[in-house]
Amino acid sequence: MPAEPLGQLRHERVDHRFKALPPDADGLTVAELAAERRSLFTGGFTTPVLALSAESVEHNLDLLQTYSERHGLVFAPHGKTSMSPQLFARQLERGAWGITVAVPHQARVCRAHGIQRIFLANEVVDPAALRWLAGELDRDPDFRFVCYADSVRGVELMDRALTDAGARRPVEVVVELGAGDGARTGARTEAECAAVADAIAATTTLKLVGVAGYEGEVPDADGDRVRAWLRRLVALAGAFDRDGRFADSPDVVISAGGSAWFDAVADVFAEIPALSRPVLKLLRSGAYVSHDDGHYRHLTPFNRVPDEGALQPAFRLWAQVVSRPGPGQAFLNAGKRDAAYDLDLPEAQVVRDARTGEIRPADGIEISGLSDQHGWVRTTPEADLEVGDWVGMGLSHPCTSFDKWQLIPVVEADGTVTDFIRTFF
Amino acid sequence: MPAEPLGQLRHERVDHRFKALPPDADGLTVAELAAERRSLFTGGFTTPVLALSAESVEHNLDLLQTYSERHGLVFAPHGKTSMSPQLFARQLERGAWGITVAVPHQARVCRAHGIQRIFLANEVVDPAALRWLAGELDRDPDFRFVCYADSVRGVELMDRALTDAGARRPVEVVVELGAGDGARTGARTEAECAAVADAIAATTTLKLVGVAGYEGEVPDADGDRVRAWLRRLVALAGAFDRDGRFADSPDVVISAGGSAWFDAVADVFAEIPALSRPVLKLLRSGAYVSHDDGHYRHLTPFNRVPDEGALQPAFRLWAQVVSRPGPGQAFLNAGKRDAAYDLDLPEAQVVRDARTGEIRPADGIEISGLSDQHGWVRTTPEADLEVGDWVGMGLSHPCTSFDKWQLIPVVEADGTVTDFIRTFF
Repeated sequence: MPAEPLGQLRHERVDHRFKALPPDADGLTVAELAAERRSLFTGGFTTPVLALSAESVEHNLDLLQTYSERHGLVFAPHGKTSMSPQLFARQLERGAWGITVAVPHQARVCRAHGIQRIFLANEVVDPAALRWLAGELDRDPDFRFVCYADSVRGVELMDRALTDAGARRPVEVVVELGAGDGARTGARTEAECAAVADAIAATTTLKLVGVAGYEGEVPDADGDRVRAWLRRLVALAGAFDRDGRFADSPDVVISAGGSAWFDAVADVFAEIPALSRPVLKLLRSGAYVSHDDGHYRHLTPFNRVPDEGALQPAFRLWAQVVSRPGPGQAFLNAGKRDAAYDLDLPEAQVVRDARTGEIRPADGIEISGLSDQHGWVRTTPEADLEVGDWVGMGLSHPCTSFDKWQLIPVVEADGTVTDFIRTFF
Repeated sequence: MPAEPLGQLRHERVDHRFKALPPDADGLTVAELAAERRSLFTGGFTTPVLALSAESVEHNLDLLQTYSERHGLVFAPHGKTSMSPQLFARQLERGAWGITVAVPHQARVCRAHGIQRIFLANEVVDPAALRWLAGELDRDPDFRFVCYADSVRGVELMDRALTDAGARRPVEVVVELGAGDGARTGARTEAECAAVADAIAATTTLKLVGVAGYEGEVPDADGDRVRAWLRRLVALAGAFDRDGRFADSPDVVISAGGSAWFDAVADVFAEIPALSRPVLKLLRSGAYVSHDDGHYRHLTPFNRVPDEGALQPAFRLWAQVVSRPGPGQAFLNAGKRDAAYDLDLPEAQVVRDARTGEIRPADGIEISGLSDQHGWVRTTPEADLEVGDWVGMGLSHPCTSFDKWQLIPVVEADGTVTDFIRTFF
């Protein structure tokens, strides 16, 4: 199918498919509802509702793009985090090279919304996905797609599937170097990487264009160990280049970089020597777009390089107190269906009073657990919290927050909803 | 908006919105694709793909309906589990009284698909949701809706919101009795329940129709403690009835029953004496529809009453090996985005060989962790597992499995896909 213009998403109808959207907006288009500039608090939204800060998203989008440019990195933000074509478009408008994805389905979502450069940070050995890919590459000569290979067998399976599919344009691949013994995917040794490269060279369906890996899985990661592994990756690219392995490629792709070590990536990639052709130093961080109030608050490299800026947590999950059965307990109407819970529980930050609409700090209020549809709240005697109040929470882990919401209000600091972000998981 | 005929879901187009669906089916309707009776394995589905067993779902739907009837229970299966109007319809066809939901958004999904009886197992104090509800009740005199109240303040907020909304038909409420100190929602004492009932009686917008609670949260639950709490619930209904509190109601609703203790509910509800009006003994179990290979495999009451039948696990998540970096490790292309991980990790059950298509037991293969988009696999020397193989996994916890998939293939034992289940989370 041809790509949909992104604007089509704004013509989608608001209805029961999208939780938290105002029931009285049923049948309006997303654009019409956004134009009404309703209040998140009094505009008919139902609880629980996840809100994305307009200002913080804007800030974060700008910050990591300028960070990348300052360090000579090409940016392909990981799209798996938000799976939102609207955010992808804003990343590309700011100069991102393309979008990184994890699985072929995510590449399909990108293609359906006109993304022309996709970096798929995994080996793809699924014949049905490779058949689709071959069709996309044939249909659109301007579409650039790069994925991983980390095993000779993987290369053989890719080659067979692409041959069976009648692929005409070779698929670009980078050899994945694993981040250490016990780490995630990726060939463990340089010798294995060379064997994979040999296997690629023996096909006509694949073309070697670089090397890649994920420093976030370096065992017992610290700055030294991560840099040491990144230097191995860079050295591998140099060795491949000296061996003439990139002869068919217009450039050499060297890619790393999640959301916890992009400072180390910037440092080590700055040392990359000149190779036989231009080097694409490709950074893939994705979680920065919303940042968070937990996991990445602790891990962000900006804690180490504060003079380069700071990301802002952009999510706030609002839920309503539906029960206050005793002095130490309260229950919210948001649970595992609504909030990330894999790394940390939500953090109660503010309370919006049901009677006055005033917002106060969530003193003495702690989220102690989540059921499917309930948040368990522990309160100390100082807590001022009653049935009907809204609790605003920070979340930990953007990837498991976005995926629980299909249409997310974008909210200005005063509570005005100005836009909606559609996600496709 | 008027309810959509359920058949509309079969006219929805298959496209990039639905992961795992065959790329070459893009643009077909769900009905057209189902009519092709493709193979899950060779019909163009991409991995990972969650499959729902046609036979097991049918078996489970029948089993709990006949269980309910045998024990004189009225069945309102919890819809939060699947959020699938097609499964709701099949539950109703078999005689279910209505559908239970957890939050107003789920009630909206039900109403959009023509559900006429909804039991919302929570207090609802959200003015926007209550305004919507008042509209639905006014618009359709045949729509029956019952929700919880567990606090005087909650009753006051409901009354104010319904009054502000100009509600004409009273909302039916049941008083929720908490399952003990430290349990989840629900008033903790009979005296508090009576105060809530008094508050309800003082309004014109609410009507008391019964009592309810959730035995699954009885602290340190065992058969005796659960039965003791259920007897408290039944006694509360009796006391309310003697006090003439159900004078305005056509029946008395007494509701309990998740998926771990419905045998105890059946036992205790069998002892309910005659009241002043007919008693609706309302069971709300929901997880049975797919059952599972973990949490509920251990907890199901059928383990205690095997002569009453046995549920069958209906989910199998298929993922592909994308990396085999060492003799003890492999990685699948399914992770937290695809599989439940809140109670147990997926259980590797079978391997489908990439070369031969043969399916063998997953000997020596264990899922040891999940990243966002990867499954970590630990293998022993006996494991026969290569890049490209598919691994079929059982899941634990239906509620966090359904919610990761929006269009789920229904698959017969031989792998033929005969239908698709749409979900709305």
